[in-house]
Amino acid sequence: MRYTLGCRLSYEVETETAFIFNLEVARQVRHRALSETLRLSPDLPLRRHEAPETGNRYVAVTVPPGRFSLDYEAAVTLEPHRADPSGIGETPVKDLPLAILPYLLPSRFVSSDRLAPFAQAEFGDAPPGFERVSRICNWIHDHIAYVRGASDEETTADETLLKRAGVCRDFAHLGAAFCRALGIPARFVSCYAYGLVPCDFHAVFEAYLDGRWWLFDATRQANLDGLVRIGVGRDAAEIAFSTPFGEMKPTGMEIRIDRADGTPERGERTTAAISTAEEGPDAGGGLR
Amino acid sequence: MRYTLGCRLSYEVETETAFIFNLEVARQVRHRALSETLRLSPDLPLRRHEAPETGNRYVAVTVPPGRFSLDYEAAVTLEPHRADPSGIGETPVKDLPLAILPYLLPSRFVSSDRLAPFAQAEFGDAPPGFERVSRICNWIHDHIAYVRGASDEETTADETLLKRAGVCRDFAHLGAAFCRALGIPARFVSCYAYGLVPCDFHAVFEAYLDGRWWLFDATRQANLDGLVRIGVGRDAAEIAFSTPFGEMKPTGMEIRIDRADGTPERGERTTAAISTAEEGPDAGGGLR
Amino acid sequence: MRYTLGCRLSYEVETETAFIFNLEVARQVRHRALSETLRLSPDLPLRRHEAPETGNRYVAVTVPPGRFSLDYEAAVTLEPHRADPSGIGETPVKDLPLAILPYLLPSRFVSSDRLAPFAQAEFGDAPPGFERVSRICNWIHDHIAYVRGASDEETTADETLLKRAGVCRDFAHLGAAFCRALGIPARFVSCYAYGLVPCDFHAVFEAYLDGRWWLFDATRQANLDGLVRIGVGRDAAEIAFSTPFGEMKPTGMEIRIDRADGTPERGERTTAAISTAEEGPDAGGGLR
Amino acid sequence: MRYTLGCRLSYEVETETAFIFNLEVARQVRHRALSETLRLSPDLPLRRHEAPETGNRYVAVTVPPGRFSLDYEAAVTLEPHRADPSGIGETPVKDLPLAILPYLLPSRFVSSDRLAPFAQAEFGDAPPGFERVSRICNWIHDHIAYVRGASDEETTADETLLKRAGVCRDFAHLGAAFCRALGIPARFVSCYAYGLVPCDFHAVFEAYLDGRWWLFDATRQANLDGLVRIGVGRDAAEIAFSTPFGEMKPTGMEIRIDRADGTPERGERTTAAISTAEEGPDAGGGLR
Repeated sequence: MRYTLGCRLSYEVETETAFIFNLEVARQVRHRALSETLRLSPDLPLRRHEAPETGNRYVAVTVPPGRFSLDYEAAVTLEPHRADPSGIGETPVKDLPLAILPYLLPSRFVSSDRLAPFAQAEFGDAPPGFERVSRICNWIHDHIAYVRGASDEETTADETLLKRAGVCRDFAHLGAAFCRALGIPARFVSCYAYGLVPCDFHAVFEAYLDGRWWLFDATRQANLDGLVRIGVGRDAAEIAFSTPFGEMKPTGMEIRIDRADGTPERGERTTAAISTAEEGPDAGGGLR
Repeated sequence: MRYTLGCRLSYEVETETAFIFNLEVARQVRHRALSETLRLSPDLPLRRHEAPETGNRYVAVTVPPGRFSLDYEAAVTLEPHRADPSGIGETPVKDLPLAILPYLLPSRFVSSDRLAPFAQAEFGDAPPGFERVSRICNWIHDHIAYVRGASDEETTADETLLKRAGVCRDFAHLGAAFCRALGIPARFVSCYAYGLVPCDFHAVFEAYLDGRWWLFDATRQANLDGLVRIGVGRDAAEIAFSTPFGEMKPTGMEIRIDRADGTPERGERTTAAISTAEEGPDAGGGLR
Repeated sequence: MRYTLGCRLSYEVETETAFIFNLEVARQVRHRALSETLRLSPDLPLRRHEAPETGNRYVAVTVPPGRFSLDYEAAVTLEPHRADPSGIGETPVKDLPLAILPYLLPSRFVSSDRLAPFAQAEFGDAPPGFERVSRICNWIHDHIAYVRGASDEETTADETLLKRAGVCRDFAHLGAAFCRALGIPARFVSCYAYGLVPCDFHAVFEAYLDGRWWLFDATRQANLDGLVRIGVGRDAAEIAFSTPFGEMKPTGMEIRIDRADGTPERGERTTAAISTAEEGPDAGGGLR
Repeated sequence: MRYTLGCRLSYEVETETAFIFNLEVARQVRHRALSETLRLSPDLPLRRHEAPETGNRYVAVTVPPGRFSLDYEAAVTLEPHRADPSGIGETPVKDLPLAILPYLLPSRFVSSDRLAPFAQAEFGDAPPGFERVSRICNWIHDHIAYVRGASDEETTADETLLKRAGVCRDFAHLGAAFCRALGIPARFVSCYAYGLVPCDFHAVFEAYLDGRWWLFDATRQANLDGLVRIGVGRDAAEIAFSTPFGEMKPTGMEIRIDRADGTPERGERTTAAISTAEEGPDAGGGLR
């Protein structure tokens, strides 16, 4: 399916501010025919970095005081890999590619070490594989309320569990934390999400099962086969869409994603297992 | 200076256990003429991984129930880069290589976001550069007691600050947290430490200043120019010397490092700034 | 039922230590014919205090270096109030006696403010009154493992929820926290517990329902109608059996409680609602 | 000195709300010739409770949906006890009246157990008595910024230490926590504060030294000899000026305190030690 998407971010910059943005569509084989433009106003020089281990694309720009805005537009054809969930088992830790180790460890907001007893008690006896991660998502959906403003940028997965409320960021952190606590590698994914209302940057998580990264969204707010990936990381800290160093004030933010052919969203969600991560012959399927 | 070093780790394994070890000397230009042997008993097949972004060397082995031991021996010539500390300033965030971003962000044990007000209040007015990081180390040395058993594997930098006690791991986490909170990239380093009494795996931190990673040890227990690097990471989670998945019991641990020519440690510590990190033409000096 | 009970505590005192003990049977109308002796060795002068608002009996003694022991023996006839649980409803906050307010508020280990969303989500729709508190106890019994050593003296109710494990102290804190979070006054009770194996000081909680304090034990380890009360408080901090100020080492602790007529414990537990708290005409039934 | 003071609180009540207020001037010997009026609009029936152990005066009222306001006016002559600070030492724990024990223990927001190592390291060697508590106040004044909005109603003393910012509530919690951690009983005091700009309910703390409760204000924003006491408690939870149970919205709040003779505040602050707590022959001087 081909999508057109983009965002417009505006700021009132008070002191010279170094911004690092991560909002461009990831370059990878399941994102075909990517065309894009990035415009800054004023038109300032920028630096780029594509992290070799993840493919995340960072753009840095130093902005003087005054108004500043960024416009990103892209079109991309997303070709997800689909599979029957029932056949997807767990990869034993001893068979995991070693490059995947960081996604088994606790990180700032994915406090899987603190949540280990809880995960073991709730999900330790569930059938391993896709089914276990589905149960984790169902549990989160049933126990955590989606409430705007329920969390802030320092909220960790264990705090979300206590608060019983959060936003997509928190749902993804908690899902990843339960997985890591059970020996399932999991990572945080930022994306443009077709079907999300109102449209916004979205966050989901991926679990590594049977040699591949599979997408999961415990919020159930978007179509898994309509997620156009931006970045992937241990948690939200690594792939904030905007990391500013300086004094400034956001003054506007618009995000959009549509079908390129203009057809509306179909009424039902996929029940297939969906994977859109990069694959390769040398990295355990899904690792760069 | 040439060193001989190594370790012997023993375990009583109760259920099949997948170990991931990170204890071999890093391969890099300032570690010259590295020769080494790694022996497992029983002699089991192992898998290796060298993380491309850090050079950390991981070894994985799956061990059946019974006794298990690992012997590592190495000889290496360490050639640190030395410089006059007084000339080392801070690199403004806007000029940092983007690949370094992860070391500016909070991580599981380096809670730099929580410690930002404390860091700003104590060190915000200090002279930037090497001097500021030296003051951070002095403060930690003066305010935190080195107490074995004061912390556990879930202890974070903010908890260490409250407990006023910790071990090398905690001193390094706190130092790195203060640095990141002030916009100075910092990372956790594990090493063999010449002069440490009693000998053990040691942990220090590196701060990125003026285009290079410099070593700092707030415990003041070892010589900065005698640290043979094993691994580097966001914090201790990433470079534990042993990460076991299974039921087992450590039954012995010996670590050693000596001068290859047998001369005893000299009486005084270097006052030079010391850097031993990998360097390269394309990554801002110090990044791979 | 008449019980004989007591305890023997021994210490090796290293520096002069001021002990405050709270281990004597509470003096109240449902504890009839209380006879008791308290012996210290060496025989040091002691100070006594009976807190007017709770009836807790504190004994203070200043002990010089050396061996120290305390022997307490008592016999008491316990006459619990029994009622049919099905008729016990909740007292609306607006009708609560104001003296009870402290037991609605969060305290050091009863973090009812942090647990409010969790309590509301799990128990907000349960039938009010005895039934709701029973469900709280069932939930705790089903979700928290009784594990010696799982907690320490700083463990709070929210930490117990995450750790999914604790001892009687933690079960009582969590039960009280859920109650307070729902507007039900609750307090921590220490006692001698007939039927507890092995015998030890026990902790349960009381909830204030329909004008009276009712006993609840989420551990299900003792008979509710065999609990001889020692003290009552906001949480464990207020009624530690021993609060020492000085350097000393506990060297022995024996607790015992038996039926005075020597009959063994009957095989079944009461299903009646049990109350043993003090009552009075002027304090809302159950408040002194 | 005679003061006139009062407050006006307004609410928009959405569902029937049970309010508990603690805002009337404490009745005690150093508050002479107290005259006061309390008016509710609408004129609803109220219940009163004066806590026997503290003298705190609580007023409860159940308010139907609609507008609600409360007006309190009082005049009182405050006669503080003054003393030379240099002669005020510490009461050893072994000589403390036992009724004071709660004020040595950690409470919800006064996390003296967590802060014990910090307190011991910073103030353990200070001269005991008034001087030590003065140093605690100086340290807090120098290290914690007074910032409106820096904390919320769940903020604890250890969090304030990390955030390096707070309001009067947080300054008082931190001061009390350091004292308790050092074996000095301390409690939280709410008051009308002559000289506070802008006028508001104020919070300070009292430390028990040499047989008497002495006032301390680490914010240095008000005159110690112009504090007209409302309530005293373990921490802010116990003596909130308003504890509502129901859905409502505060719509207005005015607090005032003036000299009855109209003379303006004198330019300088007292350097005497000030005590205004209740005294009695039987409770260790200052305990009821």
